Formats: sequence, structure tokens, C-alpha cells
Amino acid sequence: MSSILTLSCRNRPGIVGAVGHFLHAHGQDIREAQQFDDRASGRFFMRVVFAPVGDAPSSGLEAEFAAVGREFGMDWEITPSGHRMRTMILVSRFDHCLVDLVYRQRIGELPMDIVGVIANHPRESYAHLDLDGIPFHHLPIAPDTKMEQEAEVWRLMRESGAELAILARYMQVLSDGLVAKLAGRCINIHHSFLPGFKGAKPYHQAYARGVKLIGATAHYVTTALDEGPIIEQDVERISHGDTPEALVRKGRDIERRVLARAVLGHLERRVFISGSKTVVFAG
Amino acid sequence: MSSILTLSCRNRPGIVGAVGHFLHAHGQDIREAQQFDDRASGRFFMRVVFAPVGDAPSSGLEAEFAAVGREFGMDWEITPSGHRMRTMILVSRFDHCLVDLVYRQRIGELPMDIVGVIANHPRESYAHLDLDGIPFHHLPIAPDTKMEQEAEVWRLMRESGAELAILARYMQVLSDGLVAKLAGRCINIHHSFLPGFKGAKPYHQAYARGVKLIGATAHYVTTALDEGPIIEQDVERISHGDTPEALVRKGRDIERRVLARAVLGHLERRVFISGSKTVVFAG
Amino acid sequence: MSSILTLSCRNRPGIVGAVGHFLHAHGQDIREAQQFDDRASGRFFMRVVFAPVGDAPSSGLEAEFAAVGREFGMDWEITPSGHRMRTMILVSRFDHCLVDLVYRQRIGELPMDIVGVIANHPRESYAHLDLDGIPFHHLPIAPDTKMEQEAEVWRLMRESGAELAILARYMQVLSDGLVAKLAGRCINIHHSFLPGFKGAKPYHQAYARGVKLIGATAHYVTTALDEGPIIEQDVERISHGDTPEALVRKGRDIERRVLARAVLGHLERRVFISGSKTVVFAG
Amino acid sequence: MSSILTLSCRNRPGIVGAVGHFLHAHGQDIREAQQFDDRASGRFFMRVVFAPVGDAPSSGLEAEFAAVGREFGMDWEITPSGHRMRTMILVSRFDHCLVDLVYRQRIGELPMDIVGVIANHPRESYAHLDLDGIPFHHLPIAPDTKMEQEAEVWRLMRESGAELAILARYMQVLSDGLVAKLAGRCINIHHSFLPGFKGAKPYHQAYARGVKLIGATAHYVTTALDEGPIIEQDVERISHGDTPEALVRKGRDIERRVLARAVLGHLERRVFISGSKTVVFAG
Repeated sequence: MSSILTLSCRNRPGIVGAVGHFLHAHGQDIREAQQFDDRASGRFFMRVVFAPVGDAPSSGLEAEFAAVGREFGMDWEITPSGHRMRTMILVSRFDHCLVDLVYRQRIGELPMDIVGVIANHPRESYAHLDLDGIPFHHLPIAPDTKMEQEAEVWRLMRESGAELAILARYMQVLSDGLVAKLAGRCINIHHSFLPGFKGAKPYHQAYARGVKLIGATAHYVTTALDEGPIIEQDVERISHGDTPEALVRKGRDIERRVLARAVLGHLERRVFISGSKTVVFAG
Repeated sequence: MSSILTLSCRNRPGIVGAVGHFLHAHGQDIREAQQFDDRASGRFFMRVVFAPVGDAPSSGLEAEFAAVGREFGMDWEITPSGHRMRTMILVSRFDHCLVDLVYRQRIGELPMDIVGVIANHPRESYAHLDLDGIPFHHLPIAPDTKMEQEAEVWRLMRESGAELAILARYMQVLSDGLVAKLAGRCINIHHSFLPGFKGAKPYHQAYARGVKLIGATAHYVTTALDEGPIIEQDVERISHGDTPEALVRKGRDIERRVLARAVLGHLERRVFISGSKTVVFAG
Repeated sequence: MSSILTLSCRNRPGIVGAVGHFLHAHGQDIREAQQFDDRASGRFFMRVVFAPVGDAPSSGLEAEFAAVGREFGMDWEITPSGHRMRTMILVSRFDHCLVDLVYRQRIGELPMDIVGVIANHPRESYAHLDLDGIPFHHLPIAPDTKMEQEAEVWRLMRESGAELAILARYMQVLSDGLVAKLAGRCINIHHSFLPGFKGAKPYHQAYARGVKLIGATAHYVTTALDEGPIIEQDVERISHGDTPEALVRKGRDIERRVLARAVLGHLERRVFISGSKTVVFAG
Repeated sequence: MSSILTLSCRNRPGIVGAVGHFLHAHGQDIREAQQFDDRASGRFFMRVVFAPVGDAPSSGLEAEFAAVGREFGMDWEITPSGHRMRTMILVSRFDHCLVDLVYRQRIGELPMDIVGVIANHPRESYAHLDLDGIPFHHLPIAPDTKMEQEAEVWRLMRESGAELAILARYMQVLSDGLVAKLAGRCINIHHSFLPGFKGAKPYHQAYARGVKLIGATAHYVTTALDEGPIIEQDVERISHGDTPEALVRKGRDIERRVLARAVLGHLERRVFISGSKTVVFAG
């Protein structure tokens, strides 16, 4: 049974050696290791997958590693590789990302437990989606009920033990308060190649501007709309002949795969936030 | 010897039939035809490649076609396929696009005659480039000489009979007056995926924002900086590990191919301006 | 209500003019037209979308067009734009393409009626898929029952009036007899970038060879295995770190979108078979 | 001044720790490290960029590291980061890759010294290429002079101290003897997406097959034609309308960038051969 160590700290000599030495001394073999020394910010990021050699114990390592973490001032975490992150999905009218995430989770592509789906549309809107027991919460929203609705979202997050929130084409802007509570663990899919076409109706903006490629962007949600750290982006070629409706159709494919890749990276703990950007170790 | 007919007009029934009938009646065979009915603007665009059947004459067709053009209110042009457009290239310090265009022209990829190179740096800056007789004009520019320099650019354009100007990483913003004179026949390469990162140092902007793809955009120059009708765009994947310098390096490849594709499209008369956008018939 | 005229014939002067003239004379306006003159084979291909001007009738055009068709020796067809093609989907164990096609059909992306699903695995294998009334046929297959099973496939095709068969990761090789019956209307998705890695376990072949991109190919089925006319292909970048299992996962995304694009092209009558190749007019 | 340590060995616990400990103990700071544990072959690959902390010496490390190398049975090498690899370029009639490599080297993209160009066509064939003092060797080849020509190639490699040979569209098949001498340090660009379209005239093969994407492949040369370990590949979309000549034109762009990326990876010591495949650490 392997484990994943993730850490970040101010860069200084000796980190890799210390981590390597620690794991070896505790009977662990390094299976995979990636690191990044961000020379702009001075931060160092590392992800190590390790497994016990022979019958070395892998429990109790956290307590032992704490000393190393303190010495280097690390933010660190050790997680069993098999950990399934508890995840809440929020959705509005368009369900292509929701349907896709549920399918990928079901066939084992995304190592997560979906602890609930929160929608501001009723269950009937997704009549053909078999949720297979995943709790569905209809939380409609109106200008004057936004605060209550968000309180309910937050309650559901807490009570379900959700570690991650995915805005799967959830078309509501979260309040600064809720964003703060979900900092670093709320992923949104925006249907444009950011920083182009922020805000509403990006495919119509793209059509109006006459771009030759459209894209989608998965990012962590921050209080600045569509400005959070970008995790993943992709594009596809379009032409003058594509109507806004065609862009919406082509865009769905991009949105689905960009969001799924970003979520997989997060679940595998390959994504680190570094200021307004991310470090994403290739999977 | 084939010819190319390009036309645009307000859309109404019968255009294709009238063009097809005209060409057939004048002994011409249609080799290639593309059309686009822009339902947003109500404009119709068409490009037809045709060649005489047997020994039918192809000269004098313009005079005959004028009646058709008048009937439908067309902007139209008939050009021999083999026409080599007279082209002026403008460049600043970075010469990768210039070198690339000259090479492509030389091996026959770009059907144009380069009638001159205008640079705001001296000839020695491009010492290793064999211009093979293409006139080189060093037109340095300073804040108080911009007007004179542009007058000289315009004089060189006129005297050389240049039909097209290519800003091959020419880092000077043209005045509104010169832009007006070059309307629809001045192509710029911008080193970002527009509309993201307009203006100066786009690779540094891209680095600061943390995007996961960088791109380049070829567009017609208009008075609104980096807002002209887009002809071609492309992107490449980058990662957190790419420094601004690496982006500049990777970007050079994108810039070169995007500009060359846009220029080829223009030379082959596949590109039409439709308001703030373009119609580009695939080659 | 618009219609689509598709035709192919030996190329000769006057086709475009004749078609344009015919439609105009019968009160029809051309909305979209694409053509291709295959100089290698001498065949000409054309697709025209047209709609009546004012209250001109669009019924009865077939009878009138027959004369034009005869004159040029055309294979031709006129279909109402809104026609929903009757489609049978065949599937084996992996259901990602089936699930994707059903979803796209449901949200209106694919203008077809799914008249049935034929699987060599039982309905329980796709327990979470809501077929919403689409008939499901479990037709298991064993070496000595292949002939009977195919007879049953063919009976279901005929009785349901299916115009198109989609092999959505159907892992059985069809007999030459069945292939002949489905000529030009049976689309398969192969999970490699053909012509590389024909036959079984292409992702494992790709892993063994160490390629840096993997792909998928949608093609019409012919008696030569994985050699039919290619409709659409796409690829994605992989690395040395990708296990065969990772390739299978990444490949699913490619397969889904390549198959969906090919099917959409076929449904919109943008795909023509030209010998061992296809002509695909852009959508 | 930083250095690059590259190593491979049979995988076993403790390698990362030992390397990290060694470097730290010798006053070196790890700037960049990548590793790959190839579970299929049991081999371990690592690349570490390190630099001295303060005024620690970085000379003499090889002698010290030898003990670590022996302990783990490593193939290893330590190279100064600034090392410019001595490179010989071989070319035939088409010079787009040669011209591109010379340009990239000149502007500092490729950290190599070009010690010579060997061509089986005379210098005049590349009249417009400014070699700026790079020795040019015209070594024509005929069926009965192949052995002598190759002896001359090998003599030039040795006398120039060339560490790398680039076959930049060199259209001669090397003999097994010469291939053996250049094992692991001879990079070829093949103008197809291997394993599709091996051998001669791949663009014509691609046209005949009707593929929808064409590509290029850079690989190490081995005695099996077009079967050596693949370093880099890329593709571009084409259509039914592309003639073989258009494929050749579009292919040139792919060939140039694929070859340049492969060469850069090799120069930066990011590419390891692992049996019939490569491990390429991202740059």
C-alpha cells in the first residue's frame, strides 16, 4: 500500500536529501517523485509516492515526519494512495459536466466518493441521470435567498464531510464568504480560454470577436471572478461557419475533459497552489 | 491557366446560380468553390477557382462579369491563380518571422514577391540573412521622427507597388493615418492568444497569469490595437516550469507558423473581412 | 424548411451551374454549398443546403431533379434537413461510447433516432444507463453461433428500419456477408491512430512501441479489418510514464469525441466515400 | 555554475536518498530533479540539476560520486550545464530542417556547436544558407561508393569530435556498421507519424490511405529502419482537399519543430534510451 507525501516550503538546500533520507531510514521506497523550485517566488514544491520495503510499517510516519516538516517550515501532508476524496458537485441547468463526472467516477477513472449533488434546478431536470444513491439536494436560489442558500450549501459540505467542491457548470457566483471557506478546494470550469472572455456568455463573446479557437479553463475559485489559479486549459479549432450554438456544442466536449483532468490532478494531489498560479505535476 | 473569382455582397437568392451560369456560358470550368452565407450580417462571400474548357479564352472576363457584379451589388475581383502578390515586410529586432517568410517564399511555399524589407534596426542586425537582392530599408524611429518615418514607409509601399504589408514582429504601433492607408492589406502577428494579453510583453503577462497554453494571433491591423479581424491562431501547451524565456522560445514556433498560414491564406485570396471578423476558406 | 442535396459523379464542366440553375428555377435559395473535385479519381462531390424562397414548394423536387441527375450520371439524394436517421448501436463490454452517444442524442447534439442497442453482454452490464425505452437486444456470441447471431443482427436492422449501424466499441469482427449488407452505413471506432496498431489491444501495442501520442480512428467498416475509409481521427500526447491502463483511460476520451464527430458528419450528410477514402465537408 | 547528473540503474530502494545525501554532503543544492521508475523493465532513470551552495567546489565530484555509482550499478554522467554538445548535421536535398537547426543554434535556442554539415548534394544546393564558417562536406553517394562515403562520414565525426549526429532529412539509409558506431547519438526525423507509413514517400502513403492527420517522428537511429526509440512526435490536421504536395508543405512545419524539440531534449540530457523506447523528462 503506497502513500503520497506532498509538501511545500521556502526553498533551501537539503530538502530532497532530507526527505529521501527520512523515507529510506523508515523502510520506505520512493516510487515516484516530482519537485519544482519556483525561482520567482522562492517556494519549493514536492510530491513523493512511496511504499514500504518488505514488511516495514507505513503507519505512524506522520508523527515521525513532523520533525522534518518543522525543520524546513513545510506545509505537508501524507495520504494513503487509495484515499477516495469526498466530493460535492454543484450544478445548474446544463448537466454535461455532472453526467461526465458521475460516469468517470463510476468506471473508476476518478478516485473520489461523490457525497452529494447540489443543484439550483429540481431533480427532474436531470431525469435520465442515475445517481445510484448519491444524495441530491435541490437548493433553488433567488436574489434575496442567496445568503440562506449558501448557508445550506455550506451545511451540506460540512455534514457530508466533503473535502472538495466541484462547480460543474454551476452558474451562480459564490459570495466571498463561501469562497473563503472553500479556499483551495473548490474547482470551477469556465467555458472560455481565460483570460479571454471572462464573465457571462463566453461563447457568444468568442463568436462576436471572431476567434479561431475556443477553449475552457478549470481553476480554483477565488473572490476575483474567473481569476483564480488555473489548473488546466484546452482548446479546439473553430471556423467562421460556427454559430454560437455550434460553439456551445463544441465547447461541451472541451469543458468535460478539461474539468475531468483538473479534478483527477487534484484527487491525485498533483496540483499545488502557488500564489495566483498552480504547479501541476504531470500524471 | 486558372483564375480566382472572389466576391461578397448582400445575400439574396440566385447568386450561386448566376455565377455558375456565367462561368459555364463563358467556357469556364469550376475547379473549386467555397461560399459562406453570414446569417448574422446578411453578407454572402464566395471564392471560385475556374479554368477554361478547351481553348476558351479567359481574358476579357472582367468586362463581361461586371454586369453580374452590378446586378448583385458585389465587391468582386478576378485574379490569375499564378499572380504573385507584391509584399513588403516590416521587422524590428527579432527576426524569426522575417527569416521564416523569406525561406518559405524562396522554396515556393508563399506565392509572393518580396519587394522590400523595412526595419527600424540596421542591416547588420540580420547579418546572417541572405536577402538575395531584396531591397533593405533601415528606417529608425524615435518619438519625434515617427511621422517622417511613416511617411517614408508609405512612400516605399507606393513606389514598390506593394499590395500587402506584413508586420513580422514589427514592434511599432502604426499611426491611425497609416493604418487607414493599409486597411485590409496589413497583417500583424501578435504573440498571444487574443483577446488575452493584448499590448506589450504578452509572454510575461501569460507567465504572470499562469495559463497552461500560450498562443499567437495573426490579424489585420486596425486602429484599435490588437483588435483587428483575426485570421489565424494557434497554441501550445506549457507548464509551471516554463520561465518567461521558455515561453518566448516556444512562442517563436507558434508565431512563425500562424503568420505563415495567415499570409498564405491572404495570398491565395481565401480570407475575407466581414466587419470585425474574417471568413477564411480552408486551403 | 431546408433540404440537403448530396451528389457525386464523374467530373465535367457545368455541374455547379446546372445545380445552381435548377435550384434557382425551382424557387430555392442556396444556404450552404461545398464541393470537391477529386483530381486523383476524377470524381466530383457536392453538398448543397437549400430552402424555398417565399412560398415556393419544396416537395416534388426529386422528380424534377432526376433529369439533371441522369444528364450528369449522378449518384444523388435530397433529404429534408430535419430528417432523423434511424440508427442501431452495437456494443460490447466497454460502454463509454454507447453512454456518450445516448447522452448526445438526448440533448439534441446528434440528429438521429436510436432504434435499438445490440450487445453481446446482458443488460445488467449497463445497469446505470437509462435507455429510456430504446429496445435493448442481448445477442451473445460464441464461435459456433456467430452466423446465427449475425442473422439476428441483420433481422433487427431490417425490422427497425435502421439506416446506420454504429460499432461503439463492439469487439466482434463482422463477417464479410454482414459487412457487404452494411456497406457505407456502418461506422466503427478503432482505438488507435490508424494505420498504426491495427487489430487487438492497440493501446498495449502503443505502449510497447513507445509512441508519444495515441489516437483513435472512426471509419466505415469494410471486409479488410481496420482498413475502411477513415472519417475522423484525433490524438493526445502521452509520456513514458503512462502505463497501458493510463493509455486506455486517456484513449476513452479520444474515442468518444472521434466517434461522435464522425457520426455527426454522417448524419448531416457531410461524408462521402471516394474509393478507399472519404471526402468530409466541414461542419 | 550548475551541473547535470544523469543516471540509470536497476531500481532498488534508497537511490534517491543516496543521491540527495551525496549532493547535500558535498555542498550542492538540487535545483531540478526528475526520476522515472520503469516498472515494466525494472530500470530506474534520474536527472538532477544541482549547483554549489556558497563557495563549495563543484569540481572533483565525479571522482567522489564513483562510489555511489558502483554501489547501485549505475550508468551515470555529470556534465556542466553550459556544455555545448559538438554536433554534426547530415542533409540531402531538402534543407528546411538544416536551415531551421542552424537558425535555432544561432539565436541560442539549441546549446550545441555545429562542427560540420555533411551533404550528399553540393554546397550550391544550399546557396542561400549562411553557414558562417561551419565546415561543409560534400560527400556524394552512389550504390558502389556507399562504403567509402560512410567511412568518410565516420572520419569526419571522429576528427571533429562530434558527440551527436542529426539526420536532418538525410535520405540515405545508414549501414548497420555506422549505425552501431553512432548508437544512442544519432537522431533522425522521419516524415510520418510512426509506426504508420515507414519507408519511402510517407506523405504519398498518407494521401493514398486517406488519413485525417499527418505527423512526423524524431527517433534514435537503429539498424531496424524507422523502428528506433521514438523521442518526439507531433501531428497536424489535414483534409481530403490536401494533395500530396500540400502534405509535403504542411509536413515541413511538423518535421522542423519535432526535430528541434528532440534535439533540444537530447542536448539538455532529458532523453534516456530504455530498450526500444525513450524516457523523456519534460523541459
